Amino acid sequence: MKVLKNVAIVGVGLIGGSIGLALRERKLAETVVGIGRRQGTLRIARRAGAVTNTTIDLAKGVAEAELVILCSPVGFIVEHARIAAQHAPEGTPITDTGSTKQRIVEALDTGLPRGCRFLGGHPLAGSEKSGPSYARADLFDGRVAILTPTMNSHAHDYDLLEEFWQALGAVVVKMPADEHDRILAMISHLPHLGAAMLAATMPETYLRLGGSGLRDATRVAAGSPELWRQIMAENRENILDALEKYGSKLAEFHGALRDEQYERLEQLLQEGKRNRDALGG
Amino acid sequence: MKVLKNVAIVGVGLIGGSIGLALRERKLAETVVGIGRRQGTLRIARRAGAVTNTTIDLAKGVAEAELVILCSPVGFIVEHARIAAQHAPEGTPITDTGSTKQRIVEALDTGLPRGCRFLGGHPLAGSEKSGPSYARADLFDGRVAILTPTMNSHAHDYDLLEEFWQALGAVVVKMPADEHDRILAMISHLPHLGAAMLAATMPETYLRLGGSGLRDATRVAAGSPELWRQIMAENRENILDALEKYGSKLAEFHGALRDEQYERLEQLLQEGKRNRDALGG
Repeated sequence: MKVLKNVAIVGVGLIGGSIGLALRERKLAETVVGIGRRQGTLRIARRAGAVTNTTIDLAKGVAEAELVILCSPVGFIVEHARIAAQHAPEGTPITDTGSTKQRIVEALDTGLPRGCRFLGGHPLAGSEKSGPSYARADLFDGRVAILTPTMNSHAHDYDLLEEFWQALGAVVVKMPADEHDRILAMISHLPHLGAAMLAATMPETYLRLGGSGLRDATRVAAGSPELWRQIMAENRENILDALEKYGSKLAEFHGALRDEQYERLEQLLQEGKRNRDALGG
Repeated sequence: MKVLKNVAIVGVGLIGGSIGLALRERKLAETVVGIGRRQGTLRIARRAGAVTNTTIDLAKGVAEAELVILCSPVGFIVEHARIAAQHAPEGTPITDTGSTKQRIVEALDTGLPRGCRFLGGHPLAGSEKSGPSYARADLFDGRVAILTPTMNSHAHDYDLLEEFWQALGAVVVKMPADEHDRILAMISHLPHLGAAMLAATMPETYLRLGGSGLRDATRVAAGSPELWRQIMAENRENILDALEKYGSKLAEFHGALRDEQYERLEQLLQEGKRNRDALGG
């Protein structure tokens, strides 16, 4: 990838901070402007070396950007993209890292001012941790980064973003935004809800006896309820669908145990094990 | 703890093998006899240093035991305890490490031959891994070991087992067998089912995109379906109860999302996060 003169990162938390660190460590950008709501967070990001300049003024922050990357919570991405387009140089490509894509891409696919263009992205590298203190230059190494171009996307924007994520160590996968949201509802949003439901079902007094199995199974539930509420709202239909499929599977397990159909129960456990083994790690 | 002359371990998998390694490394037993069904597994345990002697003959293996520890799958513990009592020295204490306790303790609480006595145990140190190759001398360090004495238990058997588990690094917690099973249904058996259901719900083609969150949430589902089927059968009533509570929580999450009650959804996510944060790690 050619070295970028100026990259603006809106939201310098775990993802935005890690992008900044990776860009700086790999010398892929001369100036990295960190834009956020809170001076404290921006200070942490700057001290960590994730950004070279910081501002709480989105308009100012994108004024010289060659590329704008929105790492805001999903509920703010559309608004931030529109403001960025009004103030970035003519024709600046804008992308994001949001966990949902369809509504965002639909809202931003055409009609941005001043020739700016949006192309949606999502690096699959989240965590229950948040904030720039957890940022790591190698966060995207070997991870998948999804890009969701549309018929209106420019090939050179796609090429730029493909090179960008590859330069950060990621494997780029292209898919339509609606497919992204269907898949993520299953592989990320449902597991989050499953973990949250599991943790919420535990009587508090039992927690001190919880072992590593329970800790693993519920780990993602430590993620921010406010951020996850936005993700659920953005991807409501697909998540409802995933929850219903999960509910049917629960009914199958429950029925097999209730009716003492232990052969059937073992088959269901085997189904789970087969898929789990395929995941590895 | 005074050094034991001869400890018999029935089942030298992850748990039995780790007990053997810990006993040997901490010089707590002179002879550790590993008893199992398969010569191959016994050989691995002996080569790892987990046991000093091995046999596939349970009767022979316990003939000189000062303490018998049954680490068999839960479905075999009652049978193995009865055979061990027939062949161990007069008055030998017998314990186990099974994941369920009530049915086992009820079956073995009185009436063992030749003055042998059973006192149930369960170290909370399992894993999705199994077999002696994963055994570790420090597996019980800092973990909880539950003991489930009854009104018929002898104080000196309890004291011996308390010292035994403490010598292996565990924190001993005493509770009735029925309480153990109610709590374990929630903190271990339900999470296992939750993970298995989650993994089983995933379309196979989505798995290659699964990230660390999905891997964590489903990790325990890699455990042996055969072993888990036995655990489910042994603790059926409590697990059905836990599944029903989990199902109600699922209905709450689903209802909040379906009805776009996002404040309520965020509260539910917050409940999950609070409990998850309390678990730590």
